Amino acid sequence: MAYSSKIIEQAVENLSKFPGIGSKSALRMALYLAKRPESEVQHIATSILEIKTKLKQCKECGNLSDFDICLICENPARDKKVICVVEDFKDVVAIENTAQFKGVYHILGGLISPIEGIGPEDINISSLFQRIKLNEVKEVIVALAANMEGDTTTYYLSKKIAGEGIKISTISRGISIGSELEFTDEVTLGRSIINRIPYPL
Amino acid sequence: MAYSSKIIEQAVENLSKFPGIGSKSALRMALYLAKRPESEVQHIATSILEIKTKLKQCKECGNLSDFDICLICENPARDKKVICVVEDFKDVVAIENTAQFKGVYHILGGLISPIEGIGPEDINISSLFQRIKLNEVKEVIVALAANMEGDTTTYYLSKKIAGEGIKISTISRGISIGSELEFTDEVTLGRSIINRIPYPL
Repeated sequence: MAYSSKIIEQAVENLSKFPGIGSKSALRMALYLAKRPESEVQHIATSILEIKTKLKQCKECGNLSDFDICLICENPARDKKVICVVEDFKDVVAIENTAQFKGVYHILGGLISPIEGIGPEDINISSLFQRIKLNEVKEVIVALAANMEGDTTTYYLSKKIAGEGIKISTISRGISIGSELEFTDEVTLGRSIINRIPYPL
Repeated sequence: MAYSSKIIEQAVENLSKFPGIGSKSALRMALYLAKRPESEVQHIATSILEIKTKLKQCKECGNLSDFDICLICENPARDKKVICVVEDFKDVVAIENTAQFKGVYHILGGLISPIEGIGPEDINISSLFQRIKLNEVKEVIVALAANMEGDTTTYYLSKKIAGEGIKISTISRGISIGSELEFTDEVTLGRSIINRIPYPL
């Protein structure tokens, strides 16, 4: 791309580092900024910086947090004896949006991947076992991606936690609400038959 | 969306102001930043700010520029007697990428739109007439969008410039290279027949 301005070229180069942003979108973003008032652009720059300078990691669950202990872990209404294990912040947002879970979370920050050389010691796992012991946890719900890394990590966790009198479960896989059987892939459809549930409940 | 961090919530709100960025993409962007080294995030924030604090408008053509006169207007190899009129910076990037144009540009910064109450005095038009007189311009190529506002502005410019012994042209409209006739819309196909060109050239 031939830009007649180094400042814009630099901005496009920086903005196109974001996931899913190509150089054309980055140029649109840069030109959008050029048209906005300086105070608004200042706001955007500040909030980008604060992600690095102010954001912490919750000492309890490992989630990104504004404080040493995150709002969920600090909330007395949340059941500390039920822990939902997820990969990252995005998963917490997704589950919180369902308003169906009243326990606390544990964020691994990654998944076990023998191919990429990521072992249990490379992710936030050992503190999970400490939490389980300290808080007399009753149930661990493992909510990881349905792929090889997710399955490996789920299997590892279930083996490690098993035998301590703790209920272990994974979120159910099946056909999305509103989906047609004929358009569902075979693996999902197969699992939904194996994991069939009694009806009426 | 329920975010457990105000800092991330703020960043998502700010980033989703960008054109084409929704709250999910904004969250992905914020989490990407959280994983990058502070120096890189600092770079991004700085280059966003510089768009507002350092970027100027070229005194000659009205384009966004790092200096008072942009690199294109300042280049002695560019023919100042041929002016290509475009709407904004993006169009300059697009035409420069073709490497087919050796003249200079004039950036209107908008199009005449009677419906939205935008008249010729609201866009960067009067300085174009001054440039035409001062530089003894021979040709004006009007390269605006093929919609009502673009056509209105092209018509206005052609009427104003006509009679001063200046060649006026618009970029040709027609079927894209590689496109099939059957998938071309009627208006484009119709125009391409009306504006047919002799063959061989």
